[in-house]
Amino acid sequence: MDSSKVVENIYLLVIVTLISVLQNVSFAQKVERECKNQNIRTSAFERVSCANRNCMDAYPTFLAVMWCAGLCLSQAPAAFAGIIYLVIRQKYFVGYLGQTSQSTPGYLFGKRVITFLFLMCIVGIANYLLVRFYGSDYKEHVETITNAASALLLIP
Amino acid sequence: MDSSKVVENIYLLVIVTLISVLQNVSFAQKVERECKNQNIRTSAFERVSCANRNCMDAYPTFLAVMWCAGLCLSQAPAAFAGIIYLVIRQKYFVGYLGQTSQSTPGYLFGKRVITFLFLMCIVGIANYLLVRFYGSDYKEHVETITNAASALLLIP
Amino acid sequence: MDSSKVVENIYLLVIVTLISVLQNVSFAQKVERECKNQNIRTSAFERVSCANRNCMDAYPTFLAVMWCAGLCLSQAPAAFAGIIYLVIRQKYFVGYLGQTSQSTPGYLFGKRVITFLFLMCIVGIANYLLVRFYGSDYKEHVETITNAASALLLIP
Repeated sequence: MDSSKVVENIYLLVIVTLISVLQNVSFAQKVERECKNQNIRTSAFERVSCANRNCMDAYPTFLAVMWCAGLCLSQAPAAFAGIIYLVIRQKYFVGYLGQTSQSTPGYLFGKRVITFLFLMCIVGIANYLLVRFYGSDYKEHVETITNAASALLLIP
Repeated sequence: MDSSKVVENIYLLVIVTLISVLQNVSFAQKVERECKNQNIRTSAFERVSCANRNCMDAYPTFLAVMWCAGLCLSQAPAAFAGIIYLVIRQKYFVGYLGQTSQSTPGYLFGKRVITFLFLMCIVGIANYLLVRFYGSDYKEHVETITNAASALLLIP
Repeated sequence: MDSSKVVENIYLLVIVTLISVLQNVSFAQKVERECKNQNIRTSAFERVSCANRNCMDAYPTFLAVMWCAGLCLSQAPAAFAGIIYLVIRQKYFVGYLGQTSQSTPGYLFGKRVITFLFLMCIVGIANYLLVRFYGSDYKEHVETITNAASALLLIP
């Protein structure tokens, strides 16, 4: 199955998914801004429930971006970024359960990974449209660059 | 990649997804019915948090229906309906944050868009089954009609 | 579209998705453990809202596992397991609304179905890797066994 043929059938869907992801992030930022004015939750149940809630809220967004990036460009860097995201999420969840004085994690996490996957989608679609309208194909170069760039995510 | 070959591999999964979407909607309606008996939330944080919550709850359902509709029938009207849904969601979110006396948005929103995408899935699968068992192919006609019908979503 | 060609393009994404599902389950178990120490919710709105919340939390996980299982191995048993899951979810939702003295459903439900779909994904990917590196193909045998095994889900 040639990858560009896959993109041909789904690129409009991917674009809408990307816009919806942007909207999700803007909604989440509004919640985060309001959240800072709130008093601190105390009960252990409320903390673990809230941490799980935030992780679950971001989960469909993450899945959508990762699959779009993997299908549109190449799967290895997308899967690598996905692993990094899961590690960040684990840290976030554990940090949320700790003493609120020690760690006050925000509502959003893994912004850098989501941004990276988002850019991968855009590059993949841009590359498809270039191939379709101009006939040039930078996909191999782009994939090499993406593979190299995904290593940058390891920098804390 | 021939579209009917894609449908062949996923049509059972799409059918189950559609049933699960119906179930989600029935659950949400029960929450909405109970919600009307509740007193009004007042704090700004609770309002923005609740608006985000409702949007995030409906998000996987929306993604699933849009992708199924795009894969089973054709992507252009599905993506168009997706854009309309995102506009409705934006309005809903902004309306939710306003004065509760001005706007009291319900739990569900974008019912018409979800219904349209849902019907697109059913038509796509019905068309696939017709082609498989009877050999007739109305897909081109159906796609033309769907493209025209998606414009109807613009009517408020 | 040959199924092994599909798997070739997505198997890394599927693996990351599976890891994320494991993480989701571990998060949910922590919530459940804390939840048992909580006092009982009383209002009808809170009960229906909480039931809907738990169902929606598990929904993206379920969709991801079902689609991965359907794409990697074969769609019929995956769709069948999906139907079973929806029936369990319906029972869970209805049970949650009943008297808390009668039924005290936990936070998690449908663990057996999710486990079954999860194993299907692993078998599908293992089979793909075997074909790629050793050239053997047990897929037909595996599919037959999976179809038979899915009937075991009906045992309560």
